[in-house]
Amino acid sequence: MGLGVAMLTLAAAVGTPRPALMPWPSSIERGSGELGVGPDFRSAVAGKGGALVERAAKRFEARLARQTGLVLPSPVAMAEKATLEIRCDSPGKPLPYLGMDEGYTLTVTPAGATLQAAEPWGVLRGLETFLQLVSPGSSTPFRAPAVVVRDRPRFPWRGLMLDSSRHFMPLDTVKRTLDGMAAVKLNVFHWHLTDDQGFRVESRRYPELHRMGSDGLFYTQEQVKEIVAYAGERGIRVYPELDIPGHTTSWFVSHPELASMPGPYAIEREWGIMDPALDPSKEEVYRFLDGFLGEMAALFPDPYLHIGGDEVNGKHWDASERLVAFKREKGFKDNRDLLGYFSQRLSKIVTGHGKRMVGWDEILLPSLPRDSVVQSWRGQEALGSAAKLGHQGLLSNGYSIDLMWSADRHYATDPWGKGVDQLSEAERARILGGEATLWSEFTTPETVDSRIWPRTAAIAERLWSPREVKDVDDMYARLDATSRWLDWLGLDHRAGYPRMLERLAGERADDLRRLADVVEPLEDYQRGETGHYAQQTPLNRLMDAARPESDAARDLARHVDVLLADPTRQAGRRAIRVDLEEWQGLDVSLRPLLEGTEILRETMGLAAEASALAAVGLEALGFLEQGVPAPESWWTTRAPLLEREQKPRTGLEVAYRPSIKRLMEAAAGR
Amino acid sequence: MGLGVAMLTLAAAVGTPRPALMPWPSSIERGSGELGVGPDFRSAVAGKGGALVERAAKRFEARLARQTGLVLPSPVAMAEKATLEIRCDSPGKPLPYLGMDEGYTLTVTPAGATLQAAEPWGVLRGLETFLQLVSPGSSTPFRAPAVVVRDRPRFPWRGLMLDSSRHFMPLDTVKRTLDGMAAVKLNVFHWHLTDDQGFRVESRRYPELHRMGSDGLFYTQEQVKEIVAYAGERGIRVYPELDIPGHTTSWFVSHPELASMPGPYAIEREWGIMDPALDPSKEEVYRFLDGFLGEMAALFPDPYLHIGGDEVNGKHWDASERLVAFKREKGFKDNRDLLGYFSQRLSKIVTGHGKRMVGWDEILLPSLPRDSVVQSWRGQEALGSAAKLGHQGLLSNGYSIDLMWSADRHYATDPWGKGVDQLSEAERARILGGEATLWSEFTTPETVDSRIWPRTAAIAERLWSPREVKDVDDMYARLDATSRWLDWLGLDHRAGYPRMLERLAGERADDLRRLADVVEPLEDYQRGETGHYAQQTPLNRLMDAARPESDAARDLARHVDVLLADPTRQAGRRAIRVDLEEWQGLDVSLRPLLEGTEILRETMGLAAEASALAAVGLEALGFLEQGVPAPESWWTTRAPLLEREQKPRTGLEVAYRPSIKRLMEAAAGR
Repeated sequence: MGLGVAMLTLAAAVGTPRPALMPWPSSIERGSGELGVGPDFRSAVAGKGGALVERAAKRFEARLARQTGLVLPSPVAMAEKATLEIRCDSPGKPLPYLGMDEGYTLTVTPAGATLQAAEPWGVLRGLETFLQLVSPGSSTPFRAPAVVVRDRPRFPWRGLMLDSSRHFMPLDTVKRTLDGMAAVKLNVFHWHLTDDQGFRVESRRYPELHRMGSDGLFYTQEQVKEIVAYAGERGIRVYPELDIPGHTTSWFVSHPELASMPGPYAIEREWGIMDPALDPSKEEVYRFLDGFLGEMAALFPDPYLHIGGDEVNGKHWDASERLVAFKREKGFKDNRDLLGYFSQRLSKIVTGHGKRMVGWDEILLPSLPRDSVVQSWRGQEALGSAAKLGHQGLLSNGYSIDLMWSADRHYATDPWGKGVDQLSEAERARILGGEATLWSEFTTPETVDSRIWPRTAAIAERLWSPREVKDVDDMYARLDATSRWLDWLGLDHRAGYPRMLERLAGERADDLRRLADVVEPLEDYQRGETGHYAQQTPLNRLMDAARPESDAARDLARHVDVLLADPTRQAGRRAIRVDLEEWQGLDVSLRPLLEGTEILRETMGLAAEASALAAVGLEALGFLEQGVPAPESWWTTRAPLLEREQKPRTGLEVAYRPSIKRLMEAAAGR
Repeated sequence: MGLGVAMLTLAAAVGTPRPALMPWPSSIERGSGELGVGPDFRSAVAGKGGALVERAAKRFEARLARQTGLVLPSPVAMAEKATLEIRCDSPGKPLPYLGMDEGYTLTVTPAGATLQAAEPWGVLRGLETFLQLVSPGSSTPFRAPAVVVRDRPRFPWRGLMLDSSRHFMPLDTVKRTLDGMAAVKLNVFHWHLTDDQGFRVESRRYPELHRMGSDGLFYTQEQVKEIVAYAGERGIRVYPELDIPGHTTSWFVSHPELASMPGPYAIEREWGIMDPALDPSKEEVYRFLDGFLGEMAALFPDPYLHIGGDEVNGKHWDASERLVAFKREKGFKDNRDLLGYFSQRLSKIVTGHGKRMVGWDEILLPSLPRDSVVQSWRGQEALGSAAKLGHQGLLSNGYSIDLMWSADRHYATDPWGKGVDQLSEAERARILGGEATLWSEFTTPETVDSRIWPRTAAIAERLWSPREVKDVDDMYARLDATSRWLDWLGLDHRAGYPRMLERLAGERADDLRRLADVVEPLEDYQRGETGHYAQQTPLNRLMDAARPESDAARDLARHVDVLLADPTRQAGRRAIRVDLEEWQGLDVSLRPLLEGTEILRETMGLAAEASALAAVGLEALGFLEQGVPAPESWWTTRAPLLEREQKPRTGLEVAYRPSIKRLMEAAAGR
């Protein structure tokens, strides 16, 4: 014990790190000391939070037990009083809703902790914060630092869109995604359920829709209810996207009569923007939609309903004589007018079922009723325009997590764009928040966790935390801890990585990992251009195993920053050298493996490139060390290495290429 | 394609490795070429195997999809014929049984594969073999080598006992354990359901048993049925152990009237051999057992029922005046006679419910009816004696996987001991096989996978494969691949390791792993002597994260073998040096982490010891390199390092100590 106290003092003296909270709270005050978390930990619920809070406290204890390895609740430990007292003022409503009160105050002292919230939603958020505070201690096995956290979200709509259509995501995948969302305080699950490649929700009214449009991979209505309840318990709203009038090929397998061109249709297996679309001129289409959307409106209790509205390429509308005549008859100039007509009719149907309609940018036409919500994949400007027109809006541009951006790039995107200052307060309030979106062309249940986590936690922070919280290094430090913490929920974003490498390389997986650690999947839409991909294409290659962000490359970039800030000091040099020397050897050490394995052979060039870049980086480092500029001839012969192959079949690039470029430029005095 | 063929030829030329089958089959012939396994893979079922085989084929396809990342069955791929044809001659019985036909023939050619079996049980075993054959290919993404496998088990009873009493194991843990068992062709799940520390099965007849004896942690009868069905689908029999007359404290919480001494009783929280025991003199005890065992006999369809019978210390029997009088009255010499009387009475009850009674060694008394089965934790000799007396028997001695032995030690244990030659054929046939046993004093749901897998696969091989299959290096090579393969079942024995280290060390988990990789939990019963452990003690320390076997230490031992076989050749020297140099630095690099973390602080001495041993090993290597014997003074000052601390609180030891000892002895010419 004497030793323990000494240690604690020491730790305090050298400065304890910021707790790894993510999203960072609105306000946090550090106290002195810490609360020990041990086998006699006990939580107690007070106030009027009701069953929702009781169940949340139970789940919380199970998670604390998992995270610490303690046996909780212990049937034998006697606690005089609760370690954590949870007080909730009211039971709130049975389901989460837009604008619910998610605020809470969490007070941790060496003597105990209190979580206070007006509604259960705040309790849920605060319990996650408490779990994030718990880590191994220097004087007790686990501890939470003394703090007072007063917290509430900046935006009321913080969502994640999951595309269950292009690749079906099984129920347990959806559940664990919801667990992760709740952990980082996201509160809206936008469920993309229908698209050209699959109709994934049971319709009892039109059962051929899911029977013929899903390969048998769909959610029953019972399962949907299960998900709505599961999410609700975690303070997450669920609303469906039923994407029309385009993205409807899977509907037409059973209902070709709704299409603009005659059938027959088959489930679409290819990716891209497809021609089929509903026929807006047919009254039976609206009758059908009234029936089907009415069924869905009853199934999903949330008052918002997403109808897509995106990416109608107009080819079938132009090709249909009936529609050409219809447009002429109505005096429509173009397909935009036709879409506007459709959206207006649709809006009435959706409103008639008691829902507010949400759609992508494309629906934002002058004729769009004010109460429709615009989800913008175009950007903040479009969002601002929508707000001016009286529409509520959500930002998704900048939050497309399937595009393989680094977390800091998402993090830099704020729903309030530059133009926000020109908006009135009322207009600004219409910007509800944003949604991370995961389109699943290149994502399967096996890889989905690694595509969502941990990067989505950075987006969650952008939507929850004060606008001023934006230090990138600090964000990455906390993101790293958050990634490990999310692991305790059973998310597979970490464990799946070595497993996928083992599939490719067996006992040599650790060696292959040295390459995988320094490459990144191509960003944006490049992968689709590197080869032919369709729904049945196996997503089991190195580019699928590789993480969207290379930590090693980021570390190198940081060391290069330090070195180039003052090359005379040479700080960071040793770390750079160690990395580059290792990477220089990748080609030789991996060649027999890559050459002898069909599924890896495509990466031989990549490994060679990684080695060559590292070698040139070492040369550049040599010049910098000697303090002499590299000769022009050196630059001329090496510079071509900086260009990467266009459309590489591997779908991967060497993540430290930019750092090598910077070293080379510095060495050559450019 | 040309390249692919060239690669294949090359691979064939350099000799492809043995397929990583485990258990190794009775007979295997290698053919030439290989069968490509790609997106158009299709299996088809022929013959009369019925629904069991159909469902097995479906599970097989899902697992092949998971293991390869292929989309199977593909709704779009057109296969002219099935890649794997499964033929089964008969539907067999609805549930697996002792002596079922598990034989199969698996023929793989470049043109296709056929699995042929007389009964569904053989299909199940053969499908696992096929899955083990599939690995990345040099000319196709995945492939199975051409082989003809004719296979059948050596012993008909190949079991795993899981103790769900001392630490409760949730349903999904049990299911995934069954998945792993089926994968390595084990066929009996022995479910230890009641003990002093918990009564884990619902009794509808005496509901206070589970209600008061389990802290709410028990299996409902519906769940038991679910497990029996789940196991049955996988060719695994399930039989319960209801351990009496000792190990019954949890029974007496609700039913003190059955005990030898008056109550009240509480659920036992400590480990060890406890005093409470049923009172064999009371007729109501037999009436109660008749009722309860009758209920269990109906719940578990297998004809065997385990009644424990072990470790009655006799203290309560000696202390009870009633029992002292009873023994005198009956003319019993001692408690052995009393146990014999009890077992005889019990046997009648068990037989009356249509079951054969199984018990631990202790029940093997002259009065034991012939049809009772003895499970021997004492050894092969006891097993032989039982067989001579006419009892069927099972070996467990040597297969106690909670004792943290290395796989090779279990592997060396054969149910046929030295005395087997003295047995007649009929007697020998009574040795049915064996069971790996996992007592769960030091195992929780979090660690159970790593305590069972992969080592149990080596025991499974001992029980399935021909007696002559016993090359240890070959076993370890295949065990390593099997361990990775088992990962695809969702077993946590690999993924849980970094996660537990992250709990202890956060971002420094990889550093801590360098220590964890070279230590092993103490063997046998030593851990219990290193501190106080009870049911609520957290099992979240380095000794819980550490694997039972250190691969790194085994690798070092192999290098030392090579070096010492011919020190002049110096082969293996470099590998030894690299390892020892790294380990020498453990103490310094880890000290701040270990010192500053309460839960890790106990391992500071261990890290220091690891470093010191590595340093001395390097000194020894130096002498060997120079070819001069180390001076006596060197030996004298270094030798004490070879002694390890008795009862170390860490519960761990440095796994490479024996190798250091050998190097030192060689250096000193001892």
